[in-house]
Amino acid sequence: MSSAPSNPLAVSLGDPAGIGPEVIAKCWDSRSELQLPPFVAIGDPRSVTAVWDGPIEVIDDPRDADAAFDVGLPLLQLNAAGADTPGHPSVAGAHCSLDSLEIAVGLARSGSAAAVVTGPVAKEQLYAIGFQHPGQTEFVAERCGVSPGNVVMMLAGPTLRTVPVTTHVRLSEVPLHLTSALIESRGRAALRGLQRSFGIAEPRLAVSGFNPHAGEGGQLGTEEVEIIEPAIAALAAEGWRVTGPHPADTMFHARARANYDAALCMYHDQALIPIKALHFEEAVNVTLGLPIVRTAPDHGTAFNIAGQDRADPRPMAAAIRMAAQAATIRSDPA
Amino acid sequence: MSSAPSNPLAVSLGDPAGIGPEVIAKCWDSRSELQLPPFVAIGDPRSVTAVWDGPIEVIDDPRDADAAFDVGLPLLQLNAAGADTPGHPSVAGAHCSLDSLEIAVGLARSGSAAAVVTGPVAKEQLYAIGFQHPGQTEFVAERCGVSPGNVVMMLAGPTLRTVPVTTHVRLSEVPLHLTSALIESRGRAALRGLQRSFGIAEPRLAVSGFNPHAGEGGQLGTEEVEIIEPAIAALAAEGWRVTGPHPADTMFHARARANYDAALCMYHDQALIPIKALHFEEAVNVTLGLPIVRTAPDHGTAFNIAGQDRADPRPMAAAIRMAAQAATIRSDPA
Repeated sequence: MSSAPSNPLAVSLGDPAGIGPEVIAKCWDSRSELQLPPFVAIGDPRSVTAVWDGPIEVIDDPRDADAAFDVGLPLLQLNAAGADTPGHPSVAGAHCSLDSLEIAVGLARSGSAAAVVTGPVAKEQLYAIGFQHPGQTEFVAERCGVSPGNVVMMLAGPTLRTVPVTTHVRLSEVPLHLTSALIESRGRAALRGLQRSFGIAEPRLAVSGFNPHAGEGGQLGTEEVEIIEPAIAALAAEGWRVTGPHPADTMFHARARANYDAALCMYHDQALIPIKALHFEEAVNVTLGLPIVRTAPDHGTAFNIAGQDRADPRPMAAAIRMAAQAATIRSDPA
Repeated sequence: MSSAPSNPLAVSLGDPAGIGPEVIAKCWDSRSELQLPPFVAIGDPRSVTAVWDGPIEVIDDPRDADAAFDVGLPLLQLNAAGADTPGHPSVAGAHCSLDSLEIAVGLARSGSAAAVVTGPVAKEQLYAIGFQHPGQTEFVAERCGVSPGNVVMMLAGPTLRTVPVTTHVRLSEVPLHLTSALIESRGRAALRGLQRSFGIAEPRLAVSGFNPHAGEGGQLGTEEVEIIEPAIAALAAEGWRVTGPHPADTMFHARARANYDAALCMYHDQALIPIKALHFEEAVNVTLGLPIVRTAPDHGTAFNIAGQDRADPRPMAAAIRMAAQAATIRSDPA
């Protein structure tokens, strides 16, 4: 792998009863075909053996991952006794998934791992054991000493990257959350992320409108004129290459996509509909604004299919590949 | 063409200063390659000769279109003196585009044409000459004696069909327009249209949610529980195959699309983002609920590129092909 970083990637298994262990083991199985660099999984080996018959190489130093990777799935061992029934989340499993995440982030913070890739966790289970963050992203931000407001989620696929300005907000309440300051801050984080993690020296950001036809000059809504346009002007005044507000329906066809490096979208589905329509099996969740590289597949624990050999490893493989690329770019900036 | 209807299609040129004449002439040029059945254009021949050097066969009876189609672009002649400058809309051009639409619809109503395909018009110009309808769709509905509330716009591409429940409404005001009755009526029209115009005996309709994650059981919004779910239940009680509300972001990847024949979407961009991301050059606007077949390419007059030989004829060709297919299915129901 020409783009493999010098240290292995740390991959948390996520909830041991979810599909994380299965897709990560399948990634190791198909490591050549999927073009994956060496990585070390972190979690309870029983959650892997419950769903996979391949070889596991238990290691206690990530520096051994490279050599172990040729022999079996390198794994830093955690204990989640009683949490190894696929499809049945438990308190022990929640503790294990949190420990796995904590260790993976720690290894990346210390430099022992080149990047973190996180397996899917069950938020309800985490909340039950006292987890205080909305999700893994905010936890990682805190462990890195970054305010959650300064990190940004990007969904990245082979021909499209999108960044939602708002995420899990009722659609009718999005206008209450949209401010020029928020759009600017998300836009700036996206642009810096394109530079740092994707190696794009002069990134181009396309900003969507909120209303049909981007409000048609105020006829179909005022958010564009009052909120979005001032944010675009402010970013442009800082020297960034920013365009918009663009009508969202004509932003995502192939010719339009060629004009920008990322699309800044106003709400959850505006960002996620196009990326999943175009790149469902390859969409990677990248957290921008962190001192470390962190990616994740854009799917959940899928308890309903766990342990049935039905989980598709391609999203996890895409997350691992993208983490390796970003780590290489960061360690060797142009 | 095995799917060619017995009568020609009537194709209105739309605004003579827009790209309508150019793309329709290009369709005739590439009629074999684009697999187009015989059609007759309706409008001022000067708007065609201004942008195209090919042969025009002026006819005065649509029954002559079949024979003429091998020789040149069959055209029913209208007069729009002074309206033949590409890119410069005029009052004369607006009158001509309205006459062209009126005649095309009349030919389809009388049975002399198998279907209507409408070229793009300039609404501002039409309003200036007293046009009272929001767009061509409502005009066609009235001429067919159908209430505009009972016709439905479908965007149809090779692997996806979407129907928006609301269209040109400010996004923040969509919740004020969404009612169970409206969703039911749009859903019913979509299902009947799939039967009548697409020949699908037992059509499957997937209904989207409105909020992220389809409201997550009320955590992220109440429109699903209060408005959408009752509409789905009502349609299902009538015997229709209807599912949802589905999270909009996971409805449009290939595997999900295989599970339904059309997606009923709650707002403009929810319907148009996926269809244009996936099928920008082939998306056709089909009006369902009419006694005649009417399709249109999903683009506007594009005055800014008119007369520059830059307009892409593929959307118009897709609209012509789909009109022919629908006309054939309607004339020979299974």
